[in-house]
Amino acid sequence: MSSLVDGVRAGSRRSLAKLLTIIENEREGAREALAALFPHTGRAWILGVTGAPGTGKSSLVNALAKAYRARGQTVAIIAVDPTSPFTGGAILGDRIRMRDLAGDPGVFIRSMATRGSLGGLARATREVIRVLDAAGFDRIVVETVGAGQSEVEIVRAAHTTVVVEAPGLGDDVQAIKAGILEIADVLVVNKADRPGAQNTIRALKAMLELGHPTRTARVNHHGQRMQVDTPVAEADSIWLPPVIQTVATAESAEESGVAALIDAIDAHRDHLHTAGTLEPQERERIMIELRDRLQHELMTRLLGSLPDGLLTETVRRVQARELDPRQAVAWILDAS
Amino acid sequence: MSSLVDGVRAGSRRSLAKLLTIIENEREGAREALAALFPHTGRAWILGVTGAPGTGKSSLVNALAKAYRARGQTVAIIAVDPTSPFTGGAILGDRIRMRDLAGDPGVFIRSMATRGSLGGLARATREVIRVLDAAGFDRIVVETVGAGQSEVEIVRAAHTTVVVEAPGLGDDVQAIKAGILEIADVLVVNKADRPGAQNTIRALKAMLELGHPTRTARVNHHGQRMQVDTPVAEADSIWLPPVIQTVATAESAEESGVAALIDAIDAHRDHLHTAGTLEPQERERIMIELRDRLQHELMTRLLGSLPDGLLTETVRRVQARELDPRQAVAWILDAS
Repeated sequence: MSSLVDGVRAGSRRSLAKLLTIIENEREGAREALAALFPHTGRAWILGVTGAPGTGKSSLVNALAKAYRARGQTVAIIAVDPTSPFTGGAILGDRIRMRDLAGDPGVFIRSMATRGSLGGLARATREVIRVLDAAGFDRIVVETVGAGQSEVEIVRAAHTTVVVEAPGLGDDVQAIKAGILEIADVLVVNKADRPGAQNTIRALKAMLELGHPTRTARVNHHGQRMQVDTPVAEADSIWLPPVIQTVATAESAEESGVAALIDAIDAHRDHLHTAGTLEPQERERIMIELRDRLQHELMTRLLGSLPDGLLTETVRRVQARELDPRQAVAWILDAS
Repeated sequence: MSSLVDGVRAGSRRSLAKLLTIIENEREGAREALAALFPHTGRAWILGVTGAPGTGKSSLVNALAKAYRARGQTVAIIAVDPTSPFTGGAILGDRIRMRDLAGDPGVFIRSMATRGSLGGLARATREVIRVLDAAGFDRIVVETVGAGQSEVEIVRAAHTTVVVEAPGLGDDVQAIKAGILEIADVLVVNKADRPGAQNTIRALKAMLELGHPTRTARVNHHGQRMQVDTPVAEADSIWLPPVIQTVATAESAEESGVAALIDAIDAHRDHLHTAGTLEPQERERIMIELRDRLQHELMTRLLGSLPDGLLTETVRRVQARELDPRQAVAWILDAS
């Protein structure tokens, strides 16, 4: 295991791919490798890129990776699909990506798919990010499709969250979701050369301005609104997400708007540094992760300690109105 | 306490209001009262009504309550606002409602607001529903506003979930969210006399037909897709949510479309009975509730058993890269 860890640190793609498989499948040695790599994390800038299918999100991530490479930065892409049962292999989006980015040792692409539960996928994603961070990638892009909660869970690990929209998705039914706008640090209207783009941009700006006063409030994983430790009174500390227009399929980073997107991401990064919110946000992310892991661990231990069939039998007794839910919980905890 | 329980069972509104306050505030006696009432639950049909602000959802619930009353059924309305800190009192929507429905002993209205966390609000809502069920109300309407996850959590307790939309919300930016459509058993386009209503209806129907094959898959509270025990092969067992047009402000239930909405709700109820999905769905709801309560109880016990400041200190150590998250969790569990 320590040779794999050394390989990852030395930039071996083979070691990296092997270790990620071990971690994703919770094989022996995962825990030790993660512990060994953790002190080397904290260098990469982590981008979350999310948006509905049809927004051209994958092409945009491609273009973004190429633009970063042109600036001399290394890029790892984690493509997370909470709805797909495929894992580790090459899914369609990857093949297209491979053609564009293949052979570049400064780019690493990994697909992740459902691990049976969203919580499990979010936990695994955070660990894959850490390994890529310790492997020395400058930018880690976590790209995710999905509906609502899954995107929020998965991009929670990002420093900068980019939400991608496109004009005319489903005619007048736009796939813009309130919960998604809340997590956006940068908004992109991709396919900005299409009809209706100006309407989409105008609508997004209007929604953002409406939401402005609550921008400093974040929602934690209990759905509880948490105040980020920011002096809200200071106008400086408030980040109003810019709306960037892109045409990911254009030839150059300038024409495509990807250069402007990178500038917006850098501006957000500078903002977090200047406003002093980077550290408190990291603290909050760690707290959320620890609570999630604790909850998961406690439930796993509890369920493992219960006699076979007890949970099913308890559900039956509640359904028969023999026990109410509070009594049922006390009964289960007594039996454990 | 037993006199309050008797009062609730005998139809005393004063006892009911008092008991709900005790339960909402977790005062002494809540546990016993809930246990005493639980055997009397399971009679009411529980409706979840959700939709973005501006859809006229509250007026629709009003009109629905009046129509049920005209048919001789008693109605309890729980207005849940996960974003508001007010509780138990009269919020604006209630005052309008009061004017319409005041003085009718067959209608009971209760407002619930944030309990600090979404999980807490969802737990309290389920208990309030049970008390109203044991009090003998024929229909219990849980009305909720909110963004994404909160609506999903709260309407999970419902037998039939009604999602309300309206034409032209925010111009071409419709507040239709993928996660919300997934939970809809009946869709309502309210304000159907407004321009653009036909577009909204057409778009909703198109989205529903797209989503059709996955209608039997439900998402549990881990975000995991669960199959409801339905023989998917039988076309009978699949429910395609109807799209109902309403004008909640119209004079009669026929003119307003509310009669058609009641028919759709009844058809959904019949469908659940015929397809045999009512019992498995109740089992699933109970399982979700028990897991949620167990998780909450385990975390509460753990956090209560930790030395002061240990969690904050652990977060600091993770941030300093002294412990990785898995080691941190082991450390916390050892300290408890």
